[in-house]
Amino acid sequence: MSWVDGAAGSPYGVHNLPYGVFRPADGRARIGVRIADLVLDLDGAEAAELILAGGALREPVLNQFLTLGRPQWTAVRSRIVELLTDDDHRAAVEPLLVPLAEVELLLPFAVGDYVDFYSSEHHAANVGQIFRPGQPPLLPNWKHLPIGYHGRAGTVVVSDTPVVRPSGQRGTPDGPVFGPSRRLDIEAEVGFVVGVPTELGEPVPVDRFTDHVFGIVLVNDWSARDIQAWEYQPLGPFLGKSFATSVSAWVTPLEALADAWVPAPAQDPAVLDYLADAPHLGLDLRLTVDWNGTTVSRPPFATMYWTPAQQLAHLTVNGASVRAGDLFASGTVSGPDRSQTGSFLELTWGGSEPVQLDDGTSRTFLEDGDSVTVTATAPGPNGTTVALGEVRGTVRPAR
Amino acid sequence: MSWVDGAAGSPYGVHNLPYGVFRPADGRARIGVRIADLVLDLDGAEAAELILAGGALREPVLNQFLTLGRPQWTAVRSRIVELLTDDDHRAAVEPLLVPLAEVELLLPFAVGDYVDFYSSEHHAANVGQIFRPGQPPLLPNWKHLPIGYHGRAGTVVVSDTPVVRPSGQRGTPDGPVFGPSRRLDIEAEVGFVVGVPTELGEPVPVDRFTDHVFGIVLVNDWSARDIQAWEYQPLGPFLGKSFATSVSAWVTPLEALADAWVPAPAQDPAVLDYLADAPHLGLDLRLTVDWNGTTVSRPPFATMYWTPAQQLAHLTVNGASVRAGDLFASGTVSGPDRSQTGSFLELTWGGSEPVQLDDGTSRTFLEDGDSVTVTATAPGPNGTTVALGEVRGTVRPAR
Repeated sequence: MSWVDGAAGSPYGVHNLPYGVFRPADGRARIGVRIADLVLDLDGAEAAELILAGGALREPVLNQFLTLGRPQWTAVRSRIVELLTDDDHRAAVEPLLVPLAEVELLLPFAVGDYVDFYSSEHHAANVGQIFRPGQPPLLPNWKHLPIGYHGRAGTVVVSDTPVVRPSGQRGTPDGPVFGPSRRLDIEAEVGFVVGVPTELGEPVPVDRFTDHVFGIVLVNDWSARDIQAWEYQPLGPFLGKSFATSVSAWVTPLEALADAWVPAPAQDPAVLDYLADAPHLGLDLRLTVDWNGTTVSRPPFATMYWTPAQQLAHLTVNGASVRAGDLFASGTVSGPDRSQTGSFLELTWGGSEPVQLDDGTSRTFLEDGDSVTVTATAPGPNGTTVALGEVRGTVRPAR
Repeated sequence: MSWVDGAAGSPYGVHNLPYGVFRPADGRARIGVRIADLVLDLDGAEAAELILAGGALREPVLNQFLTLGRPQWTAVRSRIVELLTDDDHRAAVEPLLVPLAEVELLLPFAVGDYVDFYSSEHHAANVGQIFRPGQPPLLPNWKHLPIGYHGRAGTVVVSDTPVVRPSGQRGTPDGPVFGPSRRLDIEAEVGFVVGVPTELGEPVPVDRFTDHVFGIVLVNDWSARDIQAWEYQPLGPFLGKSFATSVSAWVTPLEALADAWVPAPAQDPAVLDYLADAPHLGLDLRLTVDWNGTTVSRPPFATMYWTPAQQLAHLTVNGASVRAGDLFASGTVSGPDRSQTGSFLELTWGGSEPVQLDDGTSRTFLEDGDSVTVTATAPGPNGTTVALGEVRGTVRPAR
């Protein structure tokens, strides 16, 4: 039981404690951990020797802390819980709590490589039916490996960063034309943040996932469908995705999600040995997509076909190394029902079936000024709820 | 005329002066510049105040120096030339020259994002004919935009780093099987190193190329064709490429290539306005591919359809930002003749026509123990030759 006001019963209570980087009034970026509607200044806590992490908490990004590994992550988390629950520490710790309303939240880690998977069977099948009607919805390789590709790490931005509508080429019957995207979309995803790095040539087997992955963020992989459709053959998405990918300001540590692991969907055909995770577990994260304040979708992460452990094992099986700050995202999270789809391409079935918003307007793709917020919750210990940090963005007109 | 022994007449004379990072006997990574078979310790030169660069030359990688911009790049280069040509400086500078044989060369810059283009018409057409016989060799979008994708930045390695044969899935008529790649290939490319960063949302027009790009490296984008063929639909190459991409240890500044610009091939159909560079210039870089010591190919970079200025303009036209250390590569350099192809896929026409090596053996794809070296030269001032740093790698057996 925390002595912090508002922590009891909050989905950001001591059972959660996501990490982030904030800028208080003094202007210096600091690592912090969220509790209720406050942020505990971990930079100040390490400076005051209330927590010892070898200086990793005094950095302006989480990367050094991410390299420390699970025993250290667990020790620091335990110490934070102690500081926030033991009344003896209150006098020393209370001055280090800053109201969230008074700080700016920054990108919590320097992104190494950003990989985006395509791990929802419902999403892949929907996209297949929309773009290749009359053909099998899944390509022959889809159930044998988690399809993925590298996205642009340098344009991963923190939640609330405005998203400028991209311009680019789109195909027309008369050849390509240049202009602002007319089919600007979202992709609601879950991202996994790598901590402990590997050497080149060293695969991460499925059973070593939790040794390397620190935690998760919510992701909105903004997508310009018209640019993507014209450019993506044969080497995959490029400018249709590279203009911005938003992530939540809070990184939820895996420790906070210990009660959220659930059996993942059975896989048929059987996967190759290096992908065979036992137990075969996904995470029961319940996403919500709000479009200008209207909840338009509730994608269930538990329905994902490929598990995060399988994704990391696949990503590294060729010897590719990982670094602290690498981010791999699940791909669009879509459940079996239309109301569970994580992209507007699917929600409006290729733009053919507009969705009604509570303000009386309707939409197919994003209009200038539109805001999208993706949130999620997970089951926590003893019937509690863990809230993930939201990822939000507002569309600005093309330049 | 340089006072350095061996500089006169060397393709690494004072007209060249590529930058790199080296580790001398004392073990600390230092920035240096190559002259003949020596490296000038720029870290030591800045420490001794022989060169002033705000401390950027005292870093362990080039990234901070890369951010300084063209006026500073030119000033530093001029000062280095002065130090290496004026006898008055010889006594102070000579102790800072270290034989290349006594140092280890390191990755010269921390790679931000790595983008790989596909800009050789001959290469794209060859690949099209090999994989899609009977169909048009180029896809409909190819002549309208420089096709590209993001590669893995974290596995970009410096020349001479061993390349372990990757394992992965390959397709068979009975379904996928897992094992070491059987079709391990190279891609001889030219890479462009970004210096001056941009803000998110700020495109780099074709006429601003030299404001942002510092110089070039040679690239070998090792490719496992069997892994790639099975995985690449629909999101592009992933594990078939991500295990290793080798770059030369030396970054040749654009100043050294001032005499190498030549008209690029005419483009038909006309490109969209944002891609219309005038003058439309490529670089007369003459590559050589050696396989176990036998020269098997001489790819001419001047034949590339898309110019580096067009590549950077395309890469950023959607508002994607660039960072110091971003690397964008040309894609495989192949000329019109078989003897000018930059991949073994093309050289052996999909593995159907083995190539003979001087040791009496023949090859289709790479065998364990094989070494490949890509070198290049360019015309320099007054009839001189500029040598680019070589990129070399030896294949180690799969683990």
